[in-house]
Amino acid sequence: MTNVELLARRKKLLGAAYSLFYAEPVHIVRGEGVWLYDADGRKYLDMYNNVPHVGHCHPHVVKAICKQAAVLNTHTRYLHENVLDYAERLTAKFSPALDTAMFCCTGSEANELALRIARKVTGGEGLIVTDFAYHGNTRAIHEISTESCPASERPAWVVTVPTPDCYRGLYRDADAAARYAAHVQEAVDTLKERGFKPAALVMDTIISSGGVVRPPPGYLRRVADIVQAAGGLFVADEVQPGFGRTGRNFWGYEADAVEPDIVTMGKPMGNGHPIAALVTRAELTRTFSRHDHYFNTFGGNPVSCAAALAVLDVIESENLQQNALDVGEQLVAGLQSLADRHEVIGDVRGNGLFIAVEFVADRAARTPDAALAGKVVNELRLRGVLTGVIGPDNNILKLRPPMVIKSAEAELMLSTLDDVLQAVAGPVA
Amino acid sequence: MTNVELLARRKKLLGAAYSLFYAEPVHIVRGEGVWLYDADGRKYLDMYNNVPHVGHCHPHVVKAICKQAAVLNTHTRYLHENVLDYAERLTAKFSPALDTAMFCCTGSEANELALRIARKVTGGEGLIVTDFAYHGNTRAIHEISTESCPASERPAWVVTVPTPDCYRGLYRDADAAARYAAHVQEAVDTLKERGFKPAALVMDTIISSGGVVRPPPGYLRRVADIVQAAGGLFVADEVQPGFGRTGRNFWGYEADAVEPDIVTMGKPMGNGHPIAALVTRAELTRTFSRHDHYFNTFGGNPVSCAAALAVLDVIESENLQQNALDVGEQLVAGLQSLADRHEVIGDVRGNGLFIAVEFVADRAARTPDAALAGKVVNELRLRGVLTGVIGPDNNILKLRPPMVIKSAEAELMLSTLDDVLQAVAGPVA
Repeated sequence: MTNVELLARRKKLLGAAYSLFYAEPVHIVRGEGVWLYDADGRKYLDMYNNVPHVGHCHPHVVKAICKQAAVLNTHTRYLHENVLDYAERLTAKFSPALDTAMFCCTGSEANELALRIARKVTGGEGLIVTDFAYHGNTRAIHEISTESCPASERPAWVVTVPTPDCYRGLYRDADAAARYAAHVQEAVDTLKERGFKPAALVMDTIISSGGVVRPPPGYLRRVADIVQAAGGLFVADEVQPGFGRTGRNFWGYEADAVEPDIVTMGKPMGNGHPIAALVTRAELTRTFSRHDHYFNTFGGNPVSCAAALAVLDVIESENLQQNALDVGEQLVAGLQSLADRHEVIGDVRGNGLFIAVEFVADRAARTPDAALAGKVVNELRLRGVLTGVIGPDNNILKLRPPMVIKSAEAELMLSTLDDVLQAVAGPVA
Repeated sequence: MTNVELLARRKKLLGAAYSLFYAEPVHIVRGEGVWLYDADGRKYLDMYNNVPHVGHCHPHVVKAICKQAAVLNTHTRYLHENVLDYAERLTAKFSPALDTAMFCCTGSEANELALRIARKVTGGEGLIVTDFAYHGNTRAIHEISTESCPASERPAWVVTVPTPDCYRGLYRDADAAARYAAHVQEAVDTLKERGFKPAALVMDTIISSGGVVRPPPGYLRRVADIVQAAGGLFVADEVQPGFGRTGRNFWGYEADAVEPDIVTMGKPMGNGHPIAALVTRAELTRTFSRHDHYFNTFGGNPVSCAAALAVLDVIESENLQQNALDVGEQLVAGLQSLADRHEVIGDVRGNGLFIAVEFVADRAARTPDAALAGKVVNELRLRGVLTGVIGPDNNILKLRPPMVIKSAEAELMLSTLDDVLQAVAGPVA
């Protein structure tokens, strides 16, 4: 079936609300490691997908899923060891106080559960989020997904703070952490004026849709202190930065001396198998359980947990956190070299294998160039490299490949980008 | 590891908000067909679980999952045939107007998406639900899950109507359909008084948590007419009755001459693999897409769709809808025989393999006997039959086995229940 036929079938069967990547969509039929293959046998270097965390179709994960699916798949109202084994392995990745795990199927559901706990535990309703955030697609989470939920549709209990972006944001100086954090205190005060006690500050620890922004050092600790002093919880959304992606740390928040009250996680946990979770302190689940109980039909089932256990195995056995650091540094160094020659690169921000490249029309003025970013992404796709665009101005190339990417593959990405920039942005400086 | 050790580990690792079935929880390690096996090798007849729809670990479904998981698992922003093949097979199970499918991971997410579409399409906010409903566990869906969300916590835009229960409810006569439906018109009027345009009536088509209640004939058509005339949508929640469980029809709503605007589905779709969906008319997705777009990271991925395709294969190749009708009728006839001898059985309601047995302290007064129901369920568990309790009064035995249950297994269930009733409710009449 041709792409034209597939597109027509898709529009008819899935309706009008679904979208596709790229001016010329790709019809992927197979994946292996960092490589995707289309129906014509063409291969693509996957620099985009963080969900297949340990590589597309990693045999250890596939085997774990198959083995468990053939034996038992049921729910958490019976005793089963997989969910306990996984909860033990997972909570061991946190400080001793964060000792309890609860399971669901998607990042949206993990954030839903975090807010449900935060509200019951604090008695508050107020939520503080960054001003171009994405945390999921259910109604309550859409309301704090300020990227897509217009201010006019947000309830009064949602107050935003500026993304602590030191390249393009309000503050770019040495005091940026304190100055950005002061907005969280303002948000607490605004909630109070509106009659709401704060329930939680919810924040990506590398702020993804805000532009793959790493908060300035000290920021996360400061804002956690502020919200906790006001009686609210600090909910760290680790759906994207978690599981070693940032290289230096297993969780994004560890870059700062901060301990969240709740950590939510999703996408990479099961390498594509739907599983998500939150980790919190036992005392919070005790308080929560006095008001409420929790059950999620598919959440924490033996197959999902087998997949998630296998993902942890591979992260450890293949030393993927270190690989994220090493290849991430190689990519950032290479991108900075490209920036020396291509004026259109305004900034390169790296956090292990979670990297942003800002395209600008004017480097001094930092004028975002969305049209160029769109061209680059589509040209890279035509040359066999899959990436995406992100950020409030749609001008940021987002690189977030499976964690198994090798040095040679990073070089291929860099040389292809060099070619594309020469083609779309003119000869090098 | 002993159950005592597992319980301690579980409390420590999963916290206080999780609950377990049975006074003596079961540690299940293996499943096959309608049978579950515990760590000591003891087998249990599974009369409870509807999620393993075509039987625990059905080899055709396991094979489909394994095959696809080894080849590719990615998302709907690339073209892939599985999601289209499944959408085609699924929408073929509906009338031609219900031609479009959208995918997510859980029943909660399917209902979230249904409400999101209903609100955008109607411009309304008002929701009408039955008075002891369960539709999911996200915040917006919890608000319409009147079983667990207290009236004091419900927003003003949620209005309830009585469960159309002709055994225990307000109306039990020949006019019950019309009299119950009149409450939906009242609810529309209440919403109007409160300043809300109706967005949707959301209803199980066999009302599960309300007591496995089959609405009286004509009720669903009447209430759909009322809400549609008021500009709202009729959302049929088929998470439990769907996929042939009721025997006579593939979808619960087909028992009445009614066509929903949106049909939501979940649990049995992937036989335990997390997949859920809604089916609606293309025109509704077009209107929705003018306001909004839709993406769900894991929703409609190639592995989930492979699982769901395999489930449809098995329903068809093993003739499971007919089996639900046949074994369902056998169970109901057997339960009615038991009722002739056991005064404690107040009512038996069957809808294929979705069956309720009401336990009563006084048959004439229909006094619910929750204590007895609890004893029966725990005694059945001790004798190797897994069931559950449901209903506003916690007095209803819910039977909802995998669709592959055979006649001899139904007989085993009936004879075990007979034994249990003799033991816990005294000698037969």
